[in-house]
Amino acid sequence: MPTDSLRVLQYGLGPIGQAVARTVLEKEPLTLVGAVDIDPDKTGRDVADLVGDDVSPTGVHVSDDAETALADGAPDVVLHTTTSFLEGVTEQLLRCVRAGAHVVSSTEELSFPHHWSPDPADRLDRAAQEEGVALVGTGVNPGYAMDTVPLMATAGCTDVQAVHVERVVDAGKRREPLQAKVGAGLSPEAFEEKKEGGPFGHIGLRESLRLVADGLGWSLEGITEELQPVRADELVNTGFRQVAAGQVAGIHHTAVGQVAGESRLSLDLKMYVGADESYDTVTVDGSPPIDLRFQGGIFGDTATVGMLVNAAPLVANASPGLHTMADLPVPRAFATSPAVSA
Amino acid sequence: MPTDSLRVLQYGLGPIGQAVARTVLEKEPLTLVGAVDIDPDKTGRDVADLVGDDVSPTGVHVSDDAETALADGAPDVVLHTTTSFLEGVTEQLLRCVRAGAHVVSSTEELSFPHHWSPDPADRLDRAAQEEGVALVGTGVNPGYAMDTVPLMATAGCTDVQAVHVERVVDAGKRREPLQAKVGAGLSPEAFEEKKEGGPFGHIGLRESLRLVADGLGWSLEGITEELQPVRADELVNTGFRQVAAGQVAGIHHTAVGQVAGESRLSLDLKMYVGADESYDTVTVDGSPPIDLRFQGGIFGDTATVGMLVNAAPLVANASPGLHTMADLPVPRAFATSPAVSA
Repeated sequence: MPTDSLRVLQYGLGPIGQAVARTVLEKEPLTLVGAVDIDPDKTGRDVADLVGDDVSPTGVHVSDDAETALADGAPDVVLHTTTSFLEGVTEQLLRCVRAGAHVVSSTEELSFPHHWSPDPADRLDRAAQEEGVALVGTGVNPGYAMDTVPLMATAGCTDVQAVHVERVVDAGKRREPLQAKVGAGLSPEAFEEKKEGGPFGHIGLRESLRLVADGLGWSLEGITEELQPVRADELVNTGFRQVAAGQVAGIHHTAVGQVAGESRLSLDLKMYVGADESYDTVTVDGSPPIDLRFQGGIFGDTATVGMLVNAAPLVANASPGLHTMADLPVPRAFATSPAVSA
Repeated sequence: MPTDSLRVLQYGLGPIGQAVARTVLEKEPLTLVGAVDIDPDKTGRDVADLVGDDVSPTGVHVSDDAETALADGAPDVVLHTTTSFLEGVTEQLLRCVRAGAHVVSSTEELSFPHHWSPDPADRLDRAAQEEGVALVGTGVNPGYAMDTVPLMATAGCTDVQAVHVERVVDAGKRREPLQAKVGAGLSPEAFEEKKEGGPFGHIGLRESLRLVADGLGWSLEGITEELQPVRADELVNTGFRQVAAGQVAGIHHTAVGQVAGESRLSLDLKMYVGADESYDTVTVDGSPPIDLRFQGGIFGDTATVGMLVNAAPLVANASPGLHTMADLPVPRAFATSPAVSA
């Protein structure tokens, strides 16, 4: 893995994008060469102002003009963190590709776009091949905990009959937007209304399911997806919000895939405030059987940032085109402090 | 990942090679097109005779002439399971490469040969590039449990200070050659003699250490390797052998790497008969911290076979040259029964 320098442009400066930009500034082989956001409260400001009181001025100012920022910064890699849905971001991603930059995006639908969004996926793939750059959609979930990790858990199996993945996240320990996202504090009625009203819950679960199935070469005959509220047993105070007993504490989102006539692939995600413990498990019904557990879970606020930054050298060295995490080399931490000081 | 057919030649028909050949015969996308072994008790026999009473004749006969078997079989991939040391196998591997075959080898020293065996590594890499084929050394350990898995455990970390890996194997549940390999039943004196006498213990631990360090971009300032006997507390009867209290039950093999002035990388392997439980753990001192555990461990007799067979489509699609597991895409099970029946 190269530790040569990479020029990075940060596209999107919400909470995740700010944390990514900060990590880029901390890693010696990475140089921040541009920052893009359309929020008028952010444009024109030095990125340092946004990412922490202890960061020296960078000389990189937030621009709302992606085209110019890309041309001026000439990034090797764009770290893209704007929205969850491909529809809103395909043009943004194409702009990066046309500027000759590799892209790592947190857009959940980009993690496995081939099934539900074949047209944007084809356009992005073709453009990337033409420009000789690589794209991937990743993050902690989708991108790691419920897809890449389960795939890797099967690596030593001579046969696999079923894969079951469970992720429990104590949303009370996570940033406030996640608590809002999972509906913590809503009444059960408001939860149902929100559910009817459009995208709600965890985005990317069906992408993870498809990524695992595709990686195993399994044909999915059907997917059953379900979203239910988790109700609080007792008062929970997260510091950001209070959730009374009986109110919604968060979500329980499941996706189950039918393969060869049976439910062989299940992803079970609970994200709620007041969870006793966070954990990630993968159970492989195979030869040999595998029973894998991340004790305490994979802490998403940090690991999302880690996945995005650590994917930068992977896309920079990948063959041109649109990739998934299953196409890229085994992901691993990049430019950690012992590496830099060595 | 392609599930197209691959023509496979099995090179080496010891216990592991036989299990690999059997798995190849069971997987529809794989066709066994040749088998090589120099054992006069095996040459000339149908592979089916060697791999199990319930296997129909294959028409593939064991040959002691690799060159001819390679020419006749025209394999896409050779699965190579002869010995642990590069010195003995470089010519075997070159022969496969010169025949235009990709190679997956269980040779432990091939898993990260660049440091200790730069000359054979360079020769193999050059030859593979000339012939347009890919090679990799893999298995459960080295290849997975103590290198690829720990690397992957760091994927979401924005920083890593240290990685500690522990593998405990109840050798009493493993095949007899492993029990012999770890010295189960030896007197403490015989263990010391054997240790002085040449290669003994687990081969590949230092390769795993280098693979993790290289993957993280860490410069190793030194490695401390230690091999100690585990003594039996009480009589252990494995079915294959009896180990009296006080005799050697197996090995405790450790490798610790110094990085940036500290012991930041440790691999701790115990393989002995009578272990209470088998497990694999990875502890990452990082942001976020990671505490990963394979409950019950990764059962090596099967997982070695799985890693070798599952790596076949990975090398068949890799860029030409000598690879490590850190260069190849995320390993995962290949051609499992639900895939074939789907």
